[in-house]
Amino acid sequence: MELQLPKGMRDFSPEEKILRDEILKKITETFETYGFPPLETPIVERYDVLSAKFAAGETSDAMKETFKLSDQGKRNLGLRFDLTVPFARYVAMNKDIKFPFKRYQIGEVFRDGPIKLGRYREFWQCDVDTAGSKNMIADAEQIKLALDVFEKLELPMYMKVNNRKLLISLLKYCGVKAKELEKTIITIDKLDKIGEAGVKKELTLKTEVTNKILKLFKITGTSEQIFAKIQELDIDEEGKQGLIELIDVFSYFNTKLLRSIKLDLSLARGLGYYTGTIFEGFQSSSEATSSICGGGRYDNMIGEYAGKNYQIPAVGISFGLDVIAEAIKAAGYETKKTITKIYVIPIKAQKSAARITDKLRKAGVKTDMDVACRGITKNLDYADKMKIPYVLFVGVDELKRNKFKLKNMKTGSERFFSAQDLIAKLK
Amino acid sequence: MELQLPKGMRDFSPEEKILRDEILKKITETFETYGFPPLETPIVERYDVLSAKFAAGETSDAMKETFKLSDQGKRNLGLRFDLTVPFARYVAMNKDIKFPFKRYQIGEVFRDGPIKLGRYREFWQCDVDTAGSKNMIADAEQIKLALDVFEKLELPMYMKVNNRKLLISLLKYCGVKAKELEKTIITIDKLDKIGEAGVKKELTLKTEVTNKILKLFKITGTSEQIFAKIQELDIDEEGKQGLIELIDVFSYFNTKLLRSIKLDLSLARGLGYYTGTIFEGFQSSSEATSSICGGGRYDNMIGEYAGKNYQIPAVGISFGLDVIAEAIKAAGYETKKTITKIYVIPIKAQKSAARITDKLRKAGVKTDMDVACRGITKNLDYADKMKIPYVLFVGVDELKRNKFKLKNMKTGSERFFSAQDLIAKLK
Repeated sequence: MELQLPKGMRDFSPEEKILRDEILKKITETFETYGFPPLETPIVERYDVLSAKFAAGETSDAMKETFKLSDQGKRNLGLRFDLTVPFARYVAMNKDIKFPFKRYQIGEVFRDGPIKLGRYREFWQCDVDTAGSKNMIADAEQIKLALDVFEKLELPMYMKVNNRKLLISLLKYCGVKAKELEKTIITIDKLDKIGEAGVKKELTLKTEVTNKILKLFKITGTSEQIFAKIQELDIDEEGKQGLIELIDVFSYFNTKLLRSIKLDLSLARGLGYYTGTIFEGFQSSSEATSSICGGGRYDNMIGEYAGKNYQIPAVGISFGLDVIAEAIKAAGYETKKTITKIYVIPIKAQKSAARITDKLRKAGVKTDMDVACRGITKNLDYADKMKIPYVLFVGVDELKRNKFKLKNMKTGSERFFSAQDLIAKLK
Repeated sequence: MELQLPKGMRDFSPEEKILRDEILKKITETFETYGFPPLETPIVERYDVLSAKFAAGETSDAMKETFKLSDQGKRNLGLRFDLTVPFARYVAMNKDIKFPFKRYQIGEVFRDGPIKLGRYREFWQCDVDTAGSKNMIADAEQIKLALDVFEKLELPMYMKVNNRKLLISLLKYCGVKAKELEKTIITIDKLDKIGEAGVKKELTLKTEVTNKILKLFKITGTSEQIFAKIQELDIDEEGKQGLIELIDVFSYFNTKLLRSIKLDLSLARGLGYYTGTIFEGFQSSSEATSSICGGGRYDNMIGEYAGKNYQIPAVGISFGLDVIAEAIKAAGYETKKTITKIYVIPIKAQKSAARITDKLRKAGVKTDMDVACRGITKNLDYADKMKIPYVLFVGVDELKRNKFKLKNMKTGSERFFSAQDLIAKLK
């Protein structure tokens, strides 16, 4: 048998997984500090839940790229392609939920799409969502949360913020017709990647309409200056409502926050379900153009799942673990080969060494010991290669005298300790 | 659309997920204290990897119950049914691994089988495995680790320990023929569940053979007494080797440990790949007969994956998160509805309340605030239902005076604090 992984899927060695767990810990801590508790839904969902038109939308990659399977009872199932759809399905199914309902969820999602650099068929998302509040404080809270997550990860970044109602209204103002809107939004979403020339090429609108759009997106200045300029335009009621929402969101940001939050009228977000605020995070100090987090308000999806007379507004943000891990490695993070603090080397006294090891572990010290009966040189070489900070030598003599030699693998210094002193030192 | 979950799969509400996360934290801490670092492999594996005869074995449920799927390139894939097979595949594929290689892995596994009480189609396993050591200290280490896990979880339990070589040898000694071995082992594994009568009914051996087996399994006493009795029997060389291994494993246990570790000659473990030590954990104080952890030595599987001239012995143990969570709930654990420590209630001063909330969060206090603009009564009712320990009232007045009313929701007492004192109190 030729051993292979499924295409586009990966193993993460302990060295890589230790880094991923450190990132997840910081993300989780921030989520909980913001009052989001955890939720878990299955990896597998009913296919009809995943393929609902109002979820991913017909034109999105997510729907075409869903892994399909079925169970013994011939039910059609699929692997989830994000964590938003399962969240909406959960909220719609559980009518006894107390609102506002906040939760975070972290886990694998799947897309059976083409493999490119940085795109995989199994990857991790870390989501927070708030259901049951129309108030813009919920949107502002998630933008602040994102800034805090990356401050904790020491990864400089900024957030682009926009509003879908305003974007659509501005596009109409420029002359885009209703049926051209979805395609136009998807193209505009790529403005930063493909540039003005690319957008012009891809859009099949009249040249004057395209030019008007591109000119509008060049409005620059502080958020207040941009708001003022838009207020001069003759946009529709929907757009005015979007503008009010956007101004409201920005009212929660102080001067310090505004250094990292940028109003960007061209931010579009590709997915079909957004209805209000949209936001996306990017690294400040990197050539990378792919986003490290993103989300927005989707006030209709839960209601569509639940059926008539059940409108639950919602807003959410998603962090991509894989792109964040890559960014942190690129920023010079030194990965760790082990979580072990001390490695016990038996000298012809394996059972005694096991007893000392037991004591250290009982005291909560992360301890490993040689379980392969190798010689001292090989064991020291192993501890050195794994970058374990300390090794302890245990022979019959050491045990009789209750004095054990501890070697600091970084400095090379050696000292003798009793079992008790050793625990006190290493804890 | 009628909203449904896939059959045999579940959502875990925040209340349930908080408990699961607490359990996982304790399990992970214990794994790391024993020198096991984390590893991650995909949820999806190549189908030929999962269906290998030497992995789950042809007669096992796992193989029949594998969820199958395929990707765009028509590759045959499947959802993993355990974490041992992916581990063996990983070790076999990565020939630069330094041995002994220890790792833990925690995640979802899938079986498309019949749904019974406590059996699901998606469930969590928490595994530790050691590859590259034939020494029984590796086996003993995992049994000790299991006892530590459940001590930390405050769940009284005991471990049954046996050896596959010895079991097979004893069955042969009783007159079981080679071709009857696998079926006999699977039946014997159910002895505790179906009783002697059930075993007699299910086994198609000669009556005298069955009776001899059942009589042998009635040998009781301390492990030393049982070892002595077996040494009197005329068993084959393989069995003698198994006995030596078992005596070696037990030599690592002190008197205290031996109160929770039981030598059980009838312990069989259903899977085909075990080659030596086998062990299984059960609750001490429960009617439940299903195991809460189990594992053993499988010295051939990695070599079978890797191909000729690559024999890597291995031993592993798996903990079932779902059965453990059920056991902890049954033992009277009180679940928590929230992780939030303080809930901020704005009194016509939402932006000011948001500013105080920001401060508390920056200081690391798990803080939630009303994002739905409800009245005080509704907010207090919410905090009470969610069992949030403290609420804070923030109005324009409070902000001017920098004095905020903190209410202890358990005692009902109210006190005024400045923002700084509040942080000091809650941290």
